[in-house]
Amino acid sequence: MHFSERIKAMQTSPIRRLVPFADEAKKKGRKVYHLNIGQPDIKTPDEYFEAVRNFKVDTVAYATSQGNNDLRDAISAYYKSWDIPYERDDIYITNGGSEALSFAVMTICDPGDELLVPEPFYANYNAFAQMALARVVPIPTRAEEGFHLPPAGVIEKLITPKTRAIWISNPGNPTGAVYTPAELEMLVSIAKKHDLYLIADEVYREFTYDGEKFTSLGHMKDALDRVIMVDSVSKRFSACGARIGCIAIRNKEFMGQVLKLCQGRLCVSTLEQVGAVGLYRTSKKYLEEVNSEYQSRRDTLYKGLKGIDGVICEQPKGAFYMMVKAPVDDAEKFITWMLQNYEVGGETMMAAPGSGFYSTPNKGKDEMRLAYVLKNEDLVKAVSILKGAIAAYPGRIEAIKA
Amino acid sequence: MHFSERIKAMQTSPIRRLVPFADEAKKKGRKVYHLNIGQPDIKTPDEYFEAVRNFKVDTVAYATSQGNNDLRDAISAYYKSWDIPYERDDIYITNGGSEALSFAVMTICDPGDELLVPEPFYANYNAFAQMALARVVPIPTRAEEGFHLPPAGVIEKLITPKTRAIWISNPGNPTGAVYTPAELEMLVSIAKKHDLYLIADEVYREFTYDGEKFTSLGHMKDALDRVIMVDSVSKRFSACGARIGCIAIRNKEFMGQVLKLCQGRLCVSTLEQVGAVGLYRTSKKYLEEVNSEYQSRRDTLYKGLKGIDGVICEQPKGAFYMMVKAPVDDAEKFITWMLQNYEVGGETMMAAPGSGFYSTPNKGKDEMRLAYVLKNEDLVKAVSILKGAIAAYPGRIEAIKA
Repeated sequence: MHFSERIKAMQTSPIRRLVPFADEAKKKGRKVYHLNIGQPDIKTPDEYFEAVRNFKVDTVAYATSQGNNDLRDAISAYYKSWDIPYERDDIYITNGGSEALSFAVMTICDPGDELLVPEPFYANYNAFAQMALARVVPIPTRAEEGFHLPPAGVIEKLITPKTRAIWISNPGNPTGAVYTPAELEMLVSIAKKHDLYLIADEVYREFTYDGEKFTSLGHMKDALDRVIMVDSVSKRFSACGARIGCIAIRNKEFMGQVLKLCQGRLCVSTLEQVGAVGLYRTSKKYLEEVNSEYQSRRDTLYKGLKGIDGVICEQPKGAFYMMVKAPVDDAEKFITWMLQNYEVGGETMMAAPGSGFYSTPNKGKDEMRLAYVLKNEDLVKAVSILKGAIAAYPGRIEAIKA
Repeated sequence: MHFSERIKAMQTSPIRRLVPFADEAKKKGRKVYHLNIGQPDIKTPDEYFEAVRNFKVDTVAYATSQGNNDLRDAISAYYKSWDIPYERDDIYITNGGSEALSFAVMTICDPGDELLVPEPFYANYNAFAQMALARVVPIPTRAEEGFHLPPAGVIEKLITPKTRAIWISNPGNPTGAVYTPAELEMLVSIAKKHDLYLIADEVYREFTYDGEKFTSLGHMKDALDRVIMVDSVSKRFSACGARIGCIAIRNKEFMGQVLKLCQGRLCVSTLEQVGAVGLYRTSKKYLEEVNSEYQSRRDTLYKGLKGIDGVICEQPKGAFYMMVKAPVDDAEKFITWMLQNYEVGGETMMAAPGSGFYSTPNKGKDEMRLAYVLKNEDLVKAVSILKGAIAAYPGRIEAIKA
């Protein structure tokens, strides 16, 4: 049977494709510490469950395609608390940040169009681009520079007549980088000069550490007609399974166009929107506590990794990921091997292979993304397993050299 | 700012685009009978609310991209009760039938590829095709023949090297047609001869009337590797807002490909999947009662329409829609006029303009789709309003002729 070129070119998720090996390990009775996926173990706020429990209707009817007004109003108020001036009509509710990203690309890109994305980047950006037959063009960044952006000249050299947007994740998945106001202003200036959109994936907005103040592309007041804001409750409120996100922009024409996509899929879950209104009622205290918890986890993971010979990583300032260089021939092979063969007291761990976060061929082969989404004591165990596994792995660089 | 050719070519939903006029009418204090949208007023089964109320977890985590196994098993058991042999692994959970359709097109179509669809067809089929830059090629059907399929020769003449699938809604939205076993066998034989997929949108499977026995493309045992089944809880359990559907096929390679799209959007709402397991526990009695209710509504609507001069329609055998020819210059103008200007005792009604269900230019301009999703007494009122509106409409054919 025939398959589209589009689908054949798509990759299975590097974050999820090794899951069958984890499942095998679990079948053998092993516990697997999941540092491969951004699935926090933090409690979802009670407000979600309370809202859901109180949901009483006769018929679970369609919501409007734009999303429920009370949720859009709650999100508008949330943005205003961040000094980001989105009104209800600037916001549509989506099936997670994922759908928002996919809609953004569909709305602005035709086949062959290009999207500039700092590399390494969240693997599914490739999937969203590929669905529209657009192409991610990587902006190179370096671990040694904390994955910050290169100078404007380097970025501008990548721009062609087919470039449609600069697309950032800030704070960054998988790098943990938090862009400075100067970096964002540089992007705005490039976007204006070349008439590009700026796609701002800010689902980790609350997660910056060491007192780092977060600046949003939504603060760039003179560029809001070209900033496509993408957001989600998934990480903020530890509610990944709720699949509630949004797309926002102060640009009526854009909202008119993207509405067609919203109407195509009719609406987002009515009940989850009710739950999400609850989430946005969550106290600031919850978010502050979660922030401290992640900062402490970051410190734990970083300290643990520093104790492994040959592992190279920088301490990130935000989100809850680290890109880590490991002394192995191939991180995907190593992780697979670890799931199949390595255990300490019946426990093993899982990371996401780094190459999936690069579109440049052969890059990231010896890297892994680690998500510090587990509590400190679990992270300590996971890093200790990782250390042992690297030492025992037949494909470790030292072993190959020897 | 730049917009993609793709998005510019997409239409706003004919079912939803007149909603602002309905909202205006409501602001004036008018009650609007919504026959424009397939949003039933039937009660969602208690099993949904019970399942949702009992949902107790600490963290609302991602589900697997394929969908929860207990829901996939429940759907597999449901299919088996219909003698359709789908196992868990043949089924992925989707965000409603809409996402399943969109995934089907993305998986099999590259730009310029063609999908044969009996016309008139559900308007969003155009949207799903357009997202993949594929094209709906209409198979003409006629109201006078109850919208049944033309002979094989007519369909085969439409096939080109770019044809990828024949795509049916059965029972039919918007026609209410229920295809005979002979028609389905004809489609299977064409699909095999030309190596095409068959996309089977069977979300109205339970809704056939007058003792009409439903035959599924899932019954075509020798073609199950090319039948892409699309399903949803929306209509079956009157749970449109739950956004739970599925895509199913007995073809491992296809499932491997479409999984990439599932992974791209991570997963479907965890809580709604829990609710849907509840829905599939609903007794057969519920479905039988709902079936009788719709049959009675169909009779009410049909009888009412027969009493309007110049209105032409056939009594459909399934789903809950009728395509109706009205004696007006332009059904979209007429519906807009009705929402703006016509009321009886503070009440008015809304239909969906027919042209949105055709891709052939100028077809369906004097047609409307009516959904008999309201209780009989409301349908009686809605038809009476429609009758009065047609008589009063300045653009009615008689008035133009006179």
